Amino acid sequence: MSEDRRTELSELGEFGLIDTLTKEFKNINASSIYGIGDDAAVIRANDEESLLVSTDMLVEGVHFNLMYTPLKHLGYKAVVVNISDICAMNGAPEQITVSIAVSNRFPKEALEELYEGIKRACDFYKVDLVGGDTTSSLSGLMISVTAIGRAKNEDVVYRNGAKENDLLVVTGDLGAAYMGLQILEREKEVYKANPDIQPDLDGYDYLLERQLKPEARKDIIGFLKDLDVKPTSMIDISDGLASEIFHLCKQSNVGCNLYDEKIPIDTKVSTTAIDFNISPATCALNGGEDYELLFTVSQEDFDKIKGNPHMTVIGHMTDASSGKYLVDKQGAAFPLKAQGWNHFSDAAG
Amino acid sequence: MSEDRRTELSELGEFGLIDTLTKEFKNINASSIYGIGDDAAVIRANDEESLLVSTDMLVEGVHFNLMYTPLKHLGYKAVVVNISDICAMNGAPEQITVSIAVSNRFPKEALEELYEGIKRACDFYKVDLVGGDTTSSLSGLMISVTAIGRAKNEDVVYRNGAKENDLLVVTGDLGAAYMGLQILEREKEVYKANPDIQPDLDGYDYLLERQLKPEARKDIIGFLKDLDVKPTSMIDISDGLASEIFHLCKQSNVGCNLYDEKIPIDTKVSTTAIDFNISPATCALNGGEDYELLFTVSQEDFDKIKGNPHMTVIGHMTDASSGKYLVDKQGAAFPLKAQGWNHFSDAAG
Repeated sequence: MSEDRRTELSELGEFGLIDTLTKEFKNINASSIYGIGDDAAVIRANDEESLLVSTDMLVEGVHFNLMYTPLKHLGYKAVVVNISDICAMNGAPEQITVSIAVSNRFPKEALEELYEGIKRACDFYKVDLVGGDTTSSLSGLMISVTAIGRAKNEDVVYRNGAKENDLLVVTGDLGAAYMGLQILEREKEVYKANPDIQPDLDGYDYLLERQLKPEARKDIIGFLKDLDVKPTSMIDISDGLASEIFHLCKQSNVGCNLYDEKIPIDTKVSTTAIDFNISPATCALNGGEDYELLFTVSQEDFDKIKGNPHMTVIGHMTDASSGKYLVDKQGAAFPLKAQGWNHFSDAAG
Repeated sequence: MSEDRRTELSELGEFGLIDTLTKEFKNINASSIYGIGDDAAVIRANDEESLLVSTDMLVEGVHFNLMYTPLKHLGYKAVVVNISDICAMNGAPEQITVSIAVSNRFPKEALEELYEGIKRACDFYKVDLVGGDTTSSLSGLMISVTAIGRAKNEDVVYRNGAKENDLLVVTGDLGAAYMGLQILEREKEVYKANPDIQPDLDGYDYLLERQLKPEARKDIIGFLKDLDVKPTSMIDISDGLASEIFHLCKQSNVGCNLYDEKIPIDTKVSTTAIDFNISPATCALNGGEDYELLFTVSQEDFDKIKGNPHMTVIGHMTDASSGKYLVDKQGAAFPLKAQGWNHFSDAAG
């Protein structure tokens, strides 16, 4: 490369970087229905069905810390985050490939634990491990998973289909994975200061489980089919609610009003967040890693999802020119800010 | 993990490790036609066609050295090694996903070079980049590519179909990529000893190109169709001829007689190998990274491939109990040894 220009990766952020690197690529094969820019690529399987392909890489020290992440949970989570992407396209996951790069400091037994977690996820989500690669690394552990799913062509849901007046719906509750991470980080610091002190994790089971062993909402895809609801747009929540709303709005060319008090937050998240001097809403908006689904439905479908214990209406889509707002209990509207995780500036260099 | 047992990864080797880690996995989805154990997984697309999925990970310091690997070539090669796996199933590559983990020491411009190489390979092989992941690493660069291809169900060629008396055929010539690596490593040492000395790479163009910018033999798949030849088994040569013959023999349950003097070796490989005090045959047998195709055909197809400039008959398959032999000019037979690359013991820890 020429020495006279150097743009730091942290200046671009992950999404800016992907846009920059891939802007020259054009799809030429008829089977490539949809490429970069959604939760998964869409590849034509036949006249009725498409295959969905999603890939994610987890890097030690960036995405996980082996000091408090059991390898079995790590294997499970590595599968889940990819299956979640297939669900976010309204498809059924069927296969995965798993590639790992690992340094010699790991014994075989450690990798067996990792694969035990991978197998548990495969069994639970009825997904087959069909391939992969195993190699050494000079330091640490990297896991790259590719998930392959299937959906009828007319069932595939993209990020770009939300319309003005559509309802914004989220599954489950938000912020717990983030608070789980805060607990683990706190206890790590305590341990580092004095290894004799036992970690105090009592009462935080829900938060820790959401961080260490998240689940993909494959069940929701079934519920939506049973309810005869096809979302107009969908995404999974990996980077935080606000960031995902930005993706839906940008790709669908709409705005959004999000109602603060509607955001589903577990009581344990709220109380722990307050202990940590963090606003519970901030955990939900910017915390990430909840792997819940965020989708929009036409108002006509409201009766079908009303009162469903797995789904909460948290806002509605507006005209793009109206912008994106967080509306509080008193009706005051504040511009929504997306503080998605920027790996290139937030992680240790 | 329990502390009382610890098996070093180097004791197992890559293939032993994969077997150990994946032995408990069973495929349950009807669409999973073939999983682990071939160049690519086979997934049913429809009644006529299958999708082929292959994935490989390249790790800095293990698979490439940025001191002498231009990033553009690295991007190209990362795509090629996966496309080669699709070709080895007798399929046509159509899509790839590319995930990279990269440390902050790389500026955006470096990644643009990498993606220029990726794009060049996509253009040349008519493959679409449809997805990926971009994240940071604590050190170095990792590239994980998944390639997706397509073949008619009846055209898919596995490693396990070779029969006794089938002819063993290899494309192109072997050993050049390995000798290219030896040249680069020698010049690296010279440079480290005295950075003022210019590297002496003159006259080694062919060897260097085979190492730094290998090609996948997509053309061969077309030639075989034109010749109306369907190989009985096939594999690509990534780890060296001997290691690949072992895979075909093991999975097809046959033996093999390989004729030393038939192995196609370029003159430049021979002369350079002798300069390096290496036997040219050893380069071909154990060198690896040639990305040529190795396949077996029924004797009935001999007339169709006889004299083809891209294909050389180098031996024939025998009964499994006969074993695997390298036969020299004088007719003496030596047991064939596979010294495939063991990442876990050969690479720096």
